Amino acid sequence: MYNSKMHTLGTNPSMIRELFEYGQAQKAELGEEAVFDFSIGNPSVPAPTIVNDTLIRLIQEKDSTLLHGYTSASGDRKVREAIAIDLQKTYHTPVDANLIYLTAGAAASLTIALKALLNEEEEVIVFAPFFPEYKVFIENAGGIMKVVPCVAPTFELDLEQLEQTITPFTKVVIINSPCNPTGVIIQEKVLQHMAQILRKKSQYYQHPIYLLSDEPYRELVYGNRSVPFVTSYYEDTLVCYSFSKSLSLPGERIGYVLVSPHAYQASDVYASICGAARSLGYVCAPALFQYMIPYCLGQTADLSIYQTNKDILYQHLVAYGYEVVPPEGAFYLFVKALEPDAVAFSKQAMRYGLLLVPSDSFGYQGYVRIAYCVPTKQIQAALPAFERLIKEYAKSGENYE
Amino acid sequence: MYNSKMHTLGTNPSMIRELFEYGQAQKAELGEEAVFDFSIGNPSVPAPTIVNDTLIRLIQEKDSTLLHGYTSASGDRKVREAIAIDLQKTYHTPVDANLIYLTAGAAASLTIALKALLNEEEEVIVFAPFFPEYKVFIENAGGIMKVVPCVAPTFELDLEQLEQTITPFTKVVIINSPCNPTGVIIQEKVLQHMAQILRKKSQYYQHPIYLLSDEPYRELVYGNRSVPFVTSYYEDTLVCYSFSKSLSLPGERIGYVLVSPHAYQASDVYASICGAARSLGYVCAPALFQYMIPYCLGQTADLSIYQTNKDILYQHLVAYGYEVVPPEGAFYLFVKALEPDAVAFSKQAMRYGLLLVPSDSFGYQGYVRIAYCVPTKQIQAALPAFERLIKEYAKSGENYE
Repeated sequence: MYNSKMHTLGTNPSMIRELFEYGQAQKAELGEEAVFDFSIGNPSVPAPTIVNDTLIRLIQEKDSTLLHGYTSASGDRKVREAIAIDLQKTYHTPVDANLIYLTAGAAASLTIALKALLNEEEEVIVFAPFFPEYKVFIENAGGIMKVVPCVAPTFELDLEQLEQTITPFTKVVIINSPCNPTGVIIQEKVLQHMAQILRKKSQYYQHPIYLLSDEPYRELVYGNRSVPFVTSYYEDTLVCYSFSKSLSLPGERIGYVLVSPHAYQASDVYASICGAARSLGYVCAPALFQYMIPYCLGQTADLSIYQTNKDILYQHLVAYGYEVVPPEGAFYLFVKALEPDAVAFSKQAMRYGLLLVPSDSFGYQGYVRIAYCVPTKQIQAALPAFERLIKEYAKSGENYE
Repeated sequence: MYNSKMHTLGTNPSMIRELFEYGQAQKAELGEEAVFDFSIGNPSVPAPTIVNDTLIRLIQEKDSTLLHGYTSASGDRKVREAIAIDLQKTYHTPVDANLIYLTAGAAASLTIALKALLNEEEEVIVFAPFFPEYKVFIENAGGIMKVVPCVAPTFELDLEQLEQTITPFTKVVIINSPCNPTGVIIQEKVLQHMAQILRKKSQYYQHPIYLLSDEPYRELVYGNRSVPFVTSYYEDTLVCYSFSKSLSLPGERIGYVLVSPHAYQASDVYASICGAARSLGYVCAPALFQYMIPYCLGQTADLSIYQTNKDILYQHLVAYGYEVVPPEGAFYLFVKALEPDAVAFSKQAMRYGLLLVPSDSFGYQGYVRIAYCVPTKQIQAALPAFERLIKEYAKSGENYE
């Protein structure tokens, strides 16, 4: 018969997807206003006008067989050069266009990079809470996922635990900054410390331990914060990027994997990226959206809406008495559940029309994720429901704090 | 270190790609006219105007967050319904929109379908000559490729040999009609006979043997020919389709996998497709190009150019004395090499500026593939070179016929 593992993956949608489907059904039955769907990380802001203007101009002006034809498998050379120049200017660190591989988005970047690096049964360390598809992608590449929980309430990386978790079979460590689901940015000093550990362990085990930096939210940061560019801190780094969130193009599938020029045998690592992409059936990244990139580098969708949403939601939830991880980036709020079982709490919240993803989905217990990439009016309309929810817990004495 | 198998895949480009790169270098050195590059199957005809008109209209009229947002993983529902209706009308056979999965092109369709169907070490039968990436995709899914050679000079499928090659481990048979590289269409009576064999063997081994029909050239047929739609002949069929060739959009990566509604436990097979796509990192097919599809179904690029090219080339090569497989579809001519070693012949042809891919690339010996998806003037300009080449062989007595 068919492959039963794939069947299970296809029939057990993520809890996120299930909540979303429930919300759609509820909206159809009870009306849009009855449901406050905070389940899905789908950008709510339109792409910047320069994106659509560029697409139209390219379609009108560029020769059709060139515009829509195959590019080189690694992506159009001029596009890769433009990305390299932009990154160098922004982060003041060397970037080599010959080590950039354009992909069909961050998920493709991750599956390709993992397939390129891993041999059967090698280990990949992730920090919990983590994006749930990491496990799927690691297992696709034959690897084994090992989890290091972050430390509440700040959700900083637990580097002591990381060091203890590294074995002779550790090949990759995945980081995600700003983090989905916590919104936390990994600070410079944490990166420096992590680099020391990975260097020491790489030397001890006599093979590079690669740092896979998953950065789809790199530009979504609040206040004067910025996200340190990881290749400046650790040499054996691969960056997985997507234009999905910064340019509000999640359906178009366009991003890249970049190998640090300082990586050991960087061009061989890159050759493995080329081989892995070929083996997974990624012929080239969508051509039209490749050619769009050079004209839109450094641009973002109007991210001020996320800032507004975050401010309203964070301030009110804290005022109501919720324990909220201070959000630094991305468009997620990570909130402590009002009872130990986050799944039970999420079900309770549903009675108030609030669709919140239990942190169990992210390999962590006792929290919920609120995706605030929604219209601001949905945030405002949902506030009374959040207030009633915490009051009910206080009244029933079920609040375990 | 990195995965050495992926490294090998990334550093050993196909012979096709190597010839193409050689041609580009030669053109840069000696001028465009010095090289007749017939190496690559890249459509030379622009997309029909309705494609670009539709893209521009969608960009101008559709809400940006909807247009560029995530679609359902299996593809936008209305798009899948439009495809189902179009296929039913065209081929008079039931098609279920719930069994169509939109993909990033035919390569993605193949990697997804193989991953969905195969368990470790199961066997996949292909007919030689075959598209070289089949081996890469089969091995990515943990399968083992078994080869059944076609019978020269007609290159019909050898069904007797097929029957003998099926074992208890055979899970999939791949067909490709019209065929790359031979241009041959599998006839109705051959499909009927093959279906009988596969049914008998499926019953004997007590599990379905799936027919994977790779059909990117379905609309590229000559004369009054048509390509039989395989689900009408065999129930456990999956169709892998791409709009790359019919609409001249190879770089945009848009196509689908379709499970026959007659397949045993069809919806479970489809669920495995969903799981496999998820596992490989295919989040959804590029959204803008999904929405383009309903407006362009039944349309094709101007294929008459391929017809013209084929006619000129076929007639002249036969007149010069070449043995050519009569082409029925696609844009390839399969020509017997003028010495037993096709690689040596291809090298000889390069001295005349002719870049022809030796059939060894396709798991077959003694032929070359000519991709005639080039400007007609290139065909005309190359004719004297083809004539001189065969004359030289006649003179030197190296012609082995």
